[in-house]
This record gives sequence, C-alpha cells and structure tokens, in this order.
Amino acid sequence: MEKVNVKEKFSLFNDHWNPRIAGEVNDSHIKLAKLKGEFDWHHHEQEDEMFYVVKGELLLKFKDSEDVLLKEGEFLIVPKGVEHKPVAEEEAHVILIEPKTTLNTGNIKNERTRENLERL
Amino acid sequence: MEKVNVKEKFSLFNDHWNPRIAGEVNDSHIKLAKLKGEFDWHHHEQEDEMFYVVKGELLLKFKDSEDVLLKEGEFLIVPKGVEHKPVAEEEAHVILIEPKTTLNTGNIKNERTRENLERL
Repeated sequence: MEKVNVKEKFSLFNDHWNPRIAGEVNDSHIKLAKLKGEFDWHHHEQEDEMFYVVKGELLLKFKDSEDVLLKEGEFLIVPKGVEHKPVAEEEAHVILIEPKTTLNTGNIKNERTRENLERL
Repeated sequence: MEKVNVKEKFSLFNDHWNPRIAGEVNDSHIKLAKLKGEFDWHHHEQEDEMFYVVKGELLLKFKDSEDVLLKEGEFLIVPKGVEHKPVAEEEAHVILIEPKTTLNTGNIKNERTRENLERL
C-alpha cells in the first residue's frame, strides 16, 4: 500500500494520449493521462469511462448530444456505447477511471491504440 | 450525461461520515464524503476502496502496517480485507471509489452504517 501523489506522478511522463496505470480498485483501473490536441471518435462497447480533469480543460464532443467542457475539478462519466471525441486545446491532465478491459481507442484500433499500459 | 463539479457538490451537504453518490462507472460508485474525527476500525471483505483527498488531510490507520497520511491531491487504495481506521483531525473532503456493494462500515454494522446513500 503506497499513497499516490497525483501531481508527482504526472511529472514522470510528458507524452500525450498515452495513459498510465496509477492504481486498481477491484475491476477498475485508475489511469493518468496528458491530453493535447484532438483524439479520434470512438466508443466503448461495454465500459463506462470517467474523465476527471485535474489541470487544464477538456472538451468532450458527442455526436448525439451537446458537447461538454470540463474544467479543473470537474468530471463526466461517458456511459458505454456513447460515441465521443476528447479534445484539449491546451495540455490537460486527466484521471481516467474505467474497467480494466477498456482500450483507449475503444471500438477502433489505430496508431493511437495503447495496450499493456505502463504502471507508474 | 451531466458534468459534476466536485467543489459545488461538496457545498450541498455538511454532515460527516455520510457518503453521497456522485456517479457510477460500471460496477463502481464515485462517492463524496466529508470526514471529521475518528471512524471505526473495519475492513471490506470483497472490496478495494480508494480514498482521494481533495481538501484537508486524512490519516489512514492500519493494524498491520504503517499509517498513511493523505494530503490534498493524494490517494491510497486500501485492498480488500485490510483492517483500517480513517481519522481526520480537521474536516477533510474525500472522493471514494469502490464497488457499489461497499458498505461504509465494512464488516461491522452500527449507528454509523449508512445504506441507501443519497445521490447528489
């Protein structure tokens, strides 16, 4: 059992769209990710996904509902099946909480897909 | 899909040791709790429990290992089965992430047990 200082862990990496695992709570992973720019449209067939912004701002775009801009200290849970596209104009630091089975690009596989995530 | 501003949600209640549900991610609940004083020793038979401090400080006492003091922006995951006692000298605001089945007092039931938690 070791405590995690979120800011310290974020200082350990600098690349974008490459989530790291910072902890596990039963079937869920706690991941840290630095996001900048536009990600791909995707959805997760079976998994809800929580985005919690700890620094910066994250725009979550949706095809079937209004976009949501998350600021520091705000979170949104994207339910399974919902098509979404994360966009960060400036770098955002985000905690992701989602089932361990969740793939970052969801239903698609491309050059941004990350598997076997690093543990912090 | 509505975003949650954590600070705003914490402003909606004032009692201690009475977690509210702020979201659900598949089998897990995201709970907010204000803690002050000493809670009871307990463990959760089947559930890991994550304590993420967003304001103040939380001391987690353990019978079989060193106590851990969590400050703002730090979290600890207490694995299932591990006896623990949360203590907050001053009021602490804490996000709890744990399976929906988790009871706040774990293996014991007493006057501090909270069931059918309020949703924020």
